[in-house]
Amino acid sequence: MTQLTSIHHINFVVKDLQASVCAYETTLGLTGFEYSELPERGVSTARLRFGGVWLVLVSPHNEDSVPGRHLKKYGEGFFLLSFGVDDLEEALSEFVERGTIPGSGIIRQGLFEWRVADLDTSAALGAMFHLTENATD
Amino acid sequence: MTQLTSIHHINFVVKDLQASVCAYETTLGLTGFEYSELPERGVSTARLRFGGVWLVLVSPHNEDSVPGRHLKKYGEGFFLLSFGVDDLEEALSEFVERGTIPGSGIIRQGLFEWRVADLDTSAALGAMFHLTENATD
Repeated sequence: MTQLTSIHHINFVVKDLQASVCAYETTLGLTGFEYSELPERGVSTARLRFGGVWLVLVSPHNEDSVPGRHLKKYGEGFFLLSFGVDDLEEALSEFVERGTIPGSGIIRQGLFEWRVADLDTSAALGAMFHLTENATD
Repeated sequence: MTQLTSIHHINFVVKDLQASVCAYETTLGLTGFEYSELPERGVSTARLRFGGVWLVLVSPHNEDSVPGRHLKKYGEGFFLLSFGVDDLEEALSEFVERGTIPGSGIIRQGLFEWRVADLDTSAALGAMFHLTENATD
């Protein structure tokens, strides 16, 4: 039983957003990235919908943020996977009831008007996951 | 223009396969993983189809393999993303024509009877990608 409904987006942390968008276009033929800023997270981003999943490139402005620290520690590459849920509050309640990884429990504004909540899964699963409400946007 | 048709699977490298499957079940409520061995790659694996994408846990038997080296260098977490293609030979030809990242160009047996080909994208894109033929399997 899970409240997860989809793979909503996959984030890749990159150093230079424009250069990375060009590289994705040139090397993989993936075109049509849309740009967006998320100053409260300290990142510039670009997204592309492909195969029912958003591929999101995230470029931190400095090292003083979660994506920035990840970039510094691991270099460019996969950052996190976000599962879609119908109702964020309900999904978080389920995680709390299960007694596992509710993360901070704080719902925050994500990229592109997405409402998101982090899950503290790095220790248990070795990868970062979070939740996004409204899996179709 | 791209030959890519889907996000076929996402691989996560893990230390202990059984423990990781349990952790995914417990923490995320994702159940129904199928196990499979791929001795020529030196890994044990488990996969789950979710949201139209295969989530695959890959546990290297030792450090003397691509997944093993990745685990040693970065620890557990995201390993690679594989795009689905209709025809692997045709897709590889396109990459060669584009003059970019044909990888080794070698088509090999992947997990679960999948035919795959690696793309040498780590330098250009900071993440590892490859191709899998027959996106619905």
